[in-house]
Amino acid sequence: MDGVERGIKERGGERTTSTTTFLFLRAVALVLTLAAAIVLGVNKQSEVVPIKLVDSLPPLNIPVTAKWHHLSAFVFFVVSNAIACSYAAISLLLCFCGKKSMGAIIITLDLLMVALLFSSIGATTAIGLMGYKGNSHVRWNKVCNVFGRFCNQGVAAIVLSLIAAIAFLLLVMLRALSLHKKSK
Amino acid sequence: MDGVERGIKERGGERTTSTTTFLFLRAVALVLTLAAAIVLGVNKQSEVVPIKLVDSLPPLNIPVTAKWHHLSAFVFFVVSNAIACSYAAISLLLCFCGKKSMGAIIITLDLLMVALLFSSIGATTAIGLMGYKGNSHVRWNKVCNVFGRFCNQGVAAIVLSLIAAIAFLLLVMLRALSLHKKSK
Repeated sequence: MDGVERGIKERGGERTTSTTTFLFLRAVALVLTLAAAIVLGVNKQSEVVPIKLVDSLPPLNIPVTAKWHHLSAFVFFVVSNAIACSYAAISLLLCFCGKKSMGAIIITLDLLMVALLFSSIGATTAIGLMGYKGNSHVRWNKVCNVFGRFCNQGVAAIVLSLIAAIAFLLLVMLRALSLHKKSK
Repeated sequence: MDGVERGIKERGGERTTSTTTFLFLRAVALVLTLAAAIVLGVNKQSEVVPIKLVDSLPPLNIPVTAKWHHLSAFVFFVVSNAIACSYAAISLLLCFCGKKSMGAIIITLDLLMVALLFSSIGATTAIGLMGYKGNSHVRWNKVCNVFGRFCNQGVAAIVLSLIAAIAFLLLVMLRALSLHKKSK
């Protein structure tokens, strides 16, 4: 085997490894955004809570249900993860079919997914943290002492979505770095 | 002027325009993240609020001050914008000095700034929206009816930071697309 042939084989091997990494990251993003959307989307917990309706009377025990769509940040999270999941599925298909002409659009959309997912993770974490700790300055009481399971499921969804967002971030980063290396 | 010379001049002109665009976007990001951090960082409003301490007594008028560091999402916002501003200043300096060898690090850090800024914008918007509208399900009352100026200043900071985040996003997108074009 001469030098040129070995060079081509090595480059081919390198290209296959890099393609496998990209496909793996895209598949991870697909699975985890789907899981995150489902984990928060089915999140529901019912508890009996003592609520004071009239000051002079003792509190009444009223059944209260916590649902994901009661909070706009959680709706944004589920919608964002559903969008990112659909996009990951379509882009994975395009990459499998080897559509090289879509390269520029795919980098752009990967980047938009990074922005979308990180903003929804930020929003959900901020509201979730408020639910865990409350805030005396704005007189917002913590709710996770009552709806513990609901909050824990929310944390699991955030962690899943964060890993998916990092996968999209790595997709853009590795693609940009490989293009940067090639352009030298 | 022969074809080759004209070609070189045109390519030179194109490169200068593109460098100017990158420098402009970086300067926009620098100014706006600085402005966003300052606008939210100096945000403070004092109001006299009627608070019921004992149920049987009439409410007491107590002076209450809203400050940015009372809410962890706002602290995250100010810190994120300060980090992005410092990085924009350093990267602007490196770009002015024409440090081509730093290209890969700058793309990576630009991308991390996109993730950082979008997550802090998401967190601040979620808390800000809760302050504007409140939520009956978790019994968190709106506070912007009392601290209107504080909330409006918060919105201004979010808009400034959002434009800066879009500038960082465009920096990564345009750089990746120009590398993609070159690699063809």
